[in-house]
Amino acid sequence: MKYEHILLAHGGGGLLTSELIREVFLPAFTNPLLAPLADGALMQIGQEKLCLTTDSYVVHPLFFPGGNIGSLAVHGTVNDVSMCGGVPLYLSAGFILEEGFPLASLREIIQAMAAAAREAQVHIVTGDTKVVAKGAADGLFINTAGVGVIRYPSPIATASIQPGDVIILNGNIGDHGAALVNAREGFGFAGGLESDSAPLNHLVAAVLAAVDSVHAMRDCTRGGLGTILAEMAEQSGMVMEIDETRIPVRETVRGFCEVLGFDPLFLANEGKMVLFCPERDGDKALEVMRHSPHGADAAIIGRVGQAAARGRVIMRNAIGGSREITPPAHELLPRIC
Amino acid sequence: MKYEHILLAHGGGGLLTSELIREVFLPAFTNPLLAPLADGALMQIGQEKLCLTTDSYVVHPLFFPGGNIGSLAVHGTVNDVSMCGGVPLYLSAGFILEEGFPLASLREIIQAMAAAAREAQVHIVTGDTKVVAKGAADGLFINTAGVGVIRYPSPIATASIQPGDVIILNGNIGDHGAALVNAREGFGFAGGLESDSAPLNHLVAAVLAAVDSVHAMRDCTRGGLGTILAEMAEQSGMVMEIDETRIPVRETVRGFCEVLGFDPLFLANEGKMVLFCPERDGDKALEVMRHSPHGADAAIIGRVGQAAARGRVIMRNAIGGSREITPPAHELLPRIC
Repeated sequence: MKYEHILLAHGGGGLLTSELIREVFLPAFTNPLLAPLADGALMQIGQEKLCLTTDSYVVHPLFFPGGNIGSLAVHGTVNDVSMCGGVPLYLSAGFILEEGFPLASLREIIQAMAAAAREAQVHIVTGDTKVVAKGAADGLFINTAGVGVIRYPSPIATASIQPGDVIILNGNIGDHGAALVNAREGFGFAGGLESDSAPLNHLVAAVLAAVDSVHAMRDCTRGGLGTILAEMAEQSGMVMEIDETRIPVRETVRGFCEVLGFDPLFLANEGKMVLFCPERDGDKALEVMRHSPHGADAAIIGRVGQAAARGRVIMRNAIGGSREITPPAHELLPRIC
Repeated sequence: MKYEHILLAHGGGGLLTSELIREVFLPAFTNPLLAPLADGALMQIGQEKLCLTTDSYVVHPLFFPGGNIGSLAVHGTVNDVSMCGGVPLYLSAGFILEEGFPLASLREIIQAMAAAAREAQVHIVTGDTKVVAKGAADGLFINTAGVGVIRYPSPIATASIQPGDVIILNGNIGDHGAALVNAREGFGFAGGLESDSAPLNHLVAAVLAAVDSVHAMRDCTRGGLGTILAEMAEQSGMVMEIDETRIPVRETVRGFCEVLGFDPLFLANEGKMVLFCPERDGDKALEVMRHSPHGADAAIIGRVGQAAARGRVIMRNAIGGSREITPPAHELLPRIC
């Protein structure tokens, strides 16, 4: 690796995160379940096919328009389990608290976690609380791990993506990233920027019940839609062709990005996902998604071209030009999720 | 609650931790699986009985005699799964890194995690890495969650403890706590103070295979043997009678405690556990434990008396006196695990 110390970008979900995982974590922990680098790991235990996922939440500020670290910690892990094709059932929750943290804030966060768990119909069944000295943490960090059961007959994985698959996105991108940057940096951008943080398990369950040919799913969290698609293109060796005009972006988010020089493609989301399935089932999947409260603005944003020597993402724009989408090597933004 | 802000003692594993859990977490997350407050939660998924546990590791210093945060993060969670009577199979690992953390240290910690996982025969199957800005964390925090499968025919739980059960401890207490305080505070106490951090799953598997009447197990981590027994006494409503002369304490640890005014009963351990079973099977369980590398100094340290209006722990000392063991309300020590 080029660096001797950890940089913020090592946690940004882009190229340096991939490098850290590939060069430090994977060689040490190598095992067949870890290798696919999906949102979670599949486990066969006796007769049951299960999945296990984990995520640590270090969002700043802890409270933001559309949620707080507690609701986020439930949504994020519920969504990771869902992206494996699993029905999320049980969550663990680990809290690292800074000495002096206000109990009233903790209560509010815990209430939001509980409400999020009720909406997603999952149970938080085990937990752990640590307190570190003042200055040794930034208020509160939460880790959640999720266990789900997989009943879908075919494997939902990046490796299952086929040429000709359509790429379906469940709604507007960039809301979470824009809301967080606006809240953290105090830009005071008006127009109601709000995180899209939401549990996607009910939406996923509805699509999986209606369509038996889903090939892959991924939530577009750290790094945004652009980074997620580039990673999936690389891992599958496919060329993905997306159409900029079909990618829904809220007007306020578009304005925010234009003023501040951000690209919504690389802004984080916490309630957005892409789904890959054969074109013949695309309209059906889209229809089901649009009937879900978290999929009203769903759209088919592109399709998978042929396999290629190097998987990549090509985006056509409104005036007919096209460009390759490559994730930024360094942080576009201060860390937000 | 008496306090409006989080104190270090809220994470110390003693009375304030219990209060925080009972008054803030439990009312919000209430569900039947969480209620028993054991080291982990039992989950019935299809035909399989599984358990899920989680722990965050915030140890300081990150490297200490006998291990580092990486080996500790594997041992701790392997042991929590084992205490539920589960065979630990899969672990998740979430890393929160401080910007600027040396990559060489990270590599060493990851190698130690991998080695610990190999010894325990568990797989680290999924992970997550976050980086926070310099000053927003203390170097590195690790969360691990563990999934295990339960095959033991009867429930291993504090609620299963019966009057007449013997209490078996697998070896010397206080090693981890003494080694950490010595390393952190730079006391420079000689004599080889070293953490006992170790995976107990093979020891537990051997005992469970030999003895079909095990009632309960707990590892004696935060708060030490004294706090763990007091909690189990309270939860089970039993009076536990232990004999101070039978509790093994290494000479160096005893000396360290005498000089610094600590009580080994309340020092943390990371490779020690208590096991409860009927007296008729006590010698057999002890014998099997002593054949394990992590149980050579195992001893029967007491027995469970009658149920009482208030469960408590009574310790007899060498000169025939006896006293009730109550966990300290506040931190005895700076936080170490």
